[in-house]
Amino acid sequence: MPIDLNADVGESYGAYAYGDDPGVLPAVSSANIACGFHAGDPGVMRATVQLAHRHGVAIGAHPGFQDLSGFGRREMYLSPAEVENLVAYQVGALAGIAATEGARLRHVKPHGALYNMAARDAALAGAIARAVRSVDPALVLFGLSGSELIAAGERAGLRVASEAFPDRGYRADASLTPRSAVDAVITSPERVAARAVTMAAGTVTTADGQVVAVKADTLCIHGDTPGAAALARAVREALTAAGIEVRPPDGR
Amino acid sequence: MPIDLNADVGESYGAYAYGDDPGVLPAVSSANIACGFHAGDPGVMRATVQLAHRHGVAIGAHPGFQDLSGFGRREMYLSPAEVENLVAYQVGALAGIAATEGARLRHVKPHGALYNMAARDAALAGAIARAVRSVDPALVLFGLSGSELIAAGERAGLRVASEAFPDRGYRADASLTPRSAVDAVITSPERVAARAVTMAAGTVTTADGQVVAVKADTLCIHGDTPGAAALARAVREALTAAGIEVRPPDGR
Amino acid sequence: MPIDLNADVGESYGAYAYGDDPGVLPAVSSANIACGFHAGDPGVMRATVQLAHRHGVAIGAHPGFQDLSGFGRREMYLSPAEVENLVAYQVGALAGIAATEGARLRHVKPHGALYNMAARDAALAGAIARAVRSVDPALVLFGLSGSELIAAGERAGLRVASEAFPDRGYRADASLTPRSAVDAVITSPERVAARAVTMAAGTVTTADGQVVAVKADTLCIHGDTPGAAALARAVREALTAAGIEVRPPDGR
Amino acid sequence: MPIDLNADVGESYGAYAYGDDPGVLPAVSSANIACGFHAGDPGVMRATVQLAHRHGVAIGAHPGFQDLSGFGRREMYLSPAEVENLVAYQVGALAGIAATEGARLRHVKPHGALYNMAARDAALAGAIARAVRSVDPALVLFGLSGSELIAAGERAGLRVASEAFPDRGYRADASLTPRSAVDAVITSPERVAARAVTMAAGTVTTADGQVVAVKADTLCIHGDTPGAAALARAVREALTAAGIEVRPPDGR
Repeated sequence: MPIDLNADVGESYGAYAYGDDPGVLPAVSSANIACGFHAGDPGVMRATVQLAHRHGVAIGAHPGFQDLSGFGRREMYLSPAEVENLVAYQVGALAGIAATEGARLRHVKPHGALYNMAARDAALAGAIARAVRSVDPALVLFGLSGSELIAAGERAGLRVASEAFPDRGYRADASLTPRSAVDAVITSPERVAARAVTMAAGTVTTADGQVVAVKADTLCIHGDTPGAAALARAVREALTAAGIEVRPPDGR
Repeated sequence: MPIDLNADVGESYGAYAYGDDPGVLPAVSSANIACGFHAGDPGVMRATVQLAHRHGVAIGAHPGFQDLSGFGRREMYLSPAEVENLVAYQVGALAGIAATEGARLRHVKPHGALYNMAARDAALAGAIARAVRSVDPALVLFGLSGSELIAAGERAGLRVASEAFPDRGYRADASLTPRSAVDAVITSPERVAARAVTMAAGTVTTADGQVVAVKADTLCIHGDTPGAAALARAVREALTAAGIEVRPPDGR
Repeated sequence: MPIDLNADVGESYGAYAYGDDPGVLPAVSSANIACGFHAGDPGVMRATVQLAHRHGVAIGAHPGFQDLSGFGRREMYLSPAEVENLVAYQVGALAGIAATEGARLRHVKPHGALYNMAARDAALAGAIARAVRSVDPALVLFGLSGSELIAAGERAGLRVASEAFPDRGYRADASLTPRSAVDAVITSPERVAARAVTMAAGTVTTADGQVVAVKADTLCIHGDTPGAAALARAVREALTAAGIEVRPPDGR
Repeated sequence: MPIDLNADVGESYGAYAYGDDPGVLPAVSSANIACGFHAGDPGVMRATVQLAHRHGVAIGAHPGFQDLSGFGRREMYLSPAEVENLVAYQVGALAGIAATEGARLRHVKPHGALYNMAARDAALAGAIARAVRSVDPALVLFGLSGSELIAAGERAGLRVASEAFPDRGYRADASLTPRSAVDAVITSPERVAARAVTMAAGTVTTADGQVVAVKADTLCIHGDTPGAAALARAVREALTAAGIEVRPPDGR
């Protein structure tokens, strides 16, 4: 079974540089590109599409709340209709930019607070799924493994990709360890790479040593941490060494 | 020969209402919908697409500078590359919103300061034409009759629509009378309607009574002036009475 | 005992007009002026300061979340430190604008979702009180009667003004009837005016006829509803007729 | 004669880091803090005020155009009235933030395109001077040496500080060498430091070796270039070694 590696990229803005896109992109198979609301601007989006395209990385939209000063990480309470329009707008905007490079979108992954809220709120999740299907029913919807967003995508008839996080701790119910806990974030490239390999096989080891099932079609590589590029390469090499092909999820 | 009537619509924003879209839309054949930079937001864009669609009015993008507080009317000096990306972003965003209503874009008309600057600056005009062609080569590019934007659209192989303004005064060289001059703006519905009919036939009468040629594929109806809806209806009725069909420009 | 009448004003933005400030301002004693985050821009703020100043109305800041497209009515989750800085920024900004007209601020009233969240969240309320005290300890802090914001203002040593809403229904515990309920909003000018008079005396009648105590130093007049100016005048006249002086709360 | 060293700081925004404020601030005597329009946000502004305050550096406002995506470097055409309000708003906002740290503003220096346009446009320059005087007549106005902004500040009765750039080439008329020319920017810390010393004495050497007079009350240190902190220290040490005191301009 192949697996996808994805990274959030294109999060610079104007004069502001963010992350290490040139370092991370060559190691992943899917690029989630910010769409100008929580990060990114039309020029950054275009340069990121170019870079991803050049490396043969699948291009996806990474829509977020309209909260540049909070980087889309702060919860905002919008109606499902507002979220649906917000997502359709941003996915369309990136599609417009991608067209200037002769590229097409392959997937959509919501960002930050929108991702987290849609993981647990079926109405928001449904709004996102509707927006994605309207803009292009061939797009793959990425969401937290086991979340409402994955369920909403399936109900909407979309191809979905369940996402897991090799650098995050997991609990016995396959949920993420809260960031406030010890071992919430794993920084050793070797450990992260080893976890990626087991996740590709469908399991994860919890902090207290249990092995639990986790569905992982795509693994997230964080691109805004020190050493992100090295981590991404370590994960990719470990997967390849284990005979696991790294490639984007099948679309339609 | 048929002619198009267009109006700028969808310029409300959040809690702010602007213009009289329900009054103006039924009378025109093309709707230029603001794309969230100088006016409009995803919810307003969607409601406007719905309304235009219901009236059988062709839907187009109305991209502008990112200057909500100035309504896109203040000159900003961006590079051609910045303008190209700005336009591709906004046209794509509206296409995404239109998709949620099963609608497709037919044309693009730049807004305000961007429209005026592109009328006289070949580099900006070329950037806009490239963006439009990239996003969808079937889109019709609207520009001031005789302007650099029309020339750039033709060079890019786009279908273009030369725009004239029946409520504006013209000079002997077929340019618009500056707004500071007497008779720069004509408010009488009867006079505007009569001018629309002669424009459809390819001429306009200047302030000092000369009849000069003006190419007019589409006539602009201003939707944000008092009595805009009545004016729009008067123009449409006069054209119909003169046996001139009102319909969107042919696309590809 | 005198009472204050306040209204939210200066909520226009650029080309967008909102509310009826010229109609409402002459009837009130305190103007809460939007500060550019949820509404208002530097030009609107200045024109509003001028207008309030001319009518002898006390000028106050009306800071809100940075959410122009949601008019500051959508909940956003910021840290108390973020809220403190947000408020200090906006109050300072209006003070800067007021200085161009030789005017000074007298009070601060948070807007929309920020007002509501600060009414029930002691940490947010404390952050707002700290910001106000830092910028100018003579400023009066307006908050919902009985709320955490009033308590925080008092703890911070600020002069506070407890606010009541003559056009809103109240429950037996002196809280507002939720907007979803019948009689949540009272539209009859006569009823609103009569309620204002009893509120000035310290009581309000609930939907089921009980008379309960409510502390009211200032009464809110909504300026963005049809007939707002007439309502404001009706309230003021009823108070005056009842021998109640309408004037801003005492500052320091 | 003492001289001032100033640097543009506080230009980070939300998750975006910019410049090397901790490296540069200890070497300068005046900090120009971005006010949230071209860069900076309330939290960044506060942290920057803290840092400057701790180093005993004078705090000033650095207002710019509302163009975050262009970092305030793109020309925008606003009316003088719009510019006046824009500046009053931003100076007031920073004063509000400074108050939370018990600090007061000492000066104002416009940013980027606004600085450049005000150097040559007397109407804009007058608008800025009026705004500064309204908010606080004791503020020192910084402007390009010999510019319209300095003239406007003097006409308005403000204390002004003429600014020179030790890392920029000068022409025989004491204007800056255009950035497109050879030797427009000087990167050697030794040369920049030596030029700072001669500028403090009132002269600058042009590219072709002429010594011309330049009035310099304050010298700008660019904080967003590689090696900015080392350059700032080199300049300060050279001035000190030459017996020139580095301190903020006298206010009122």
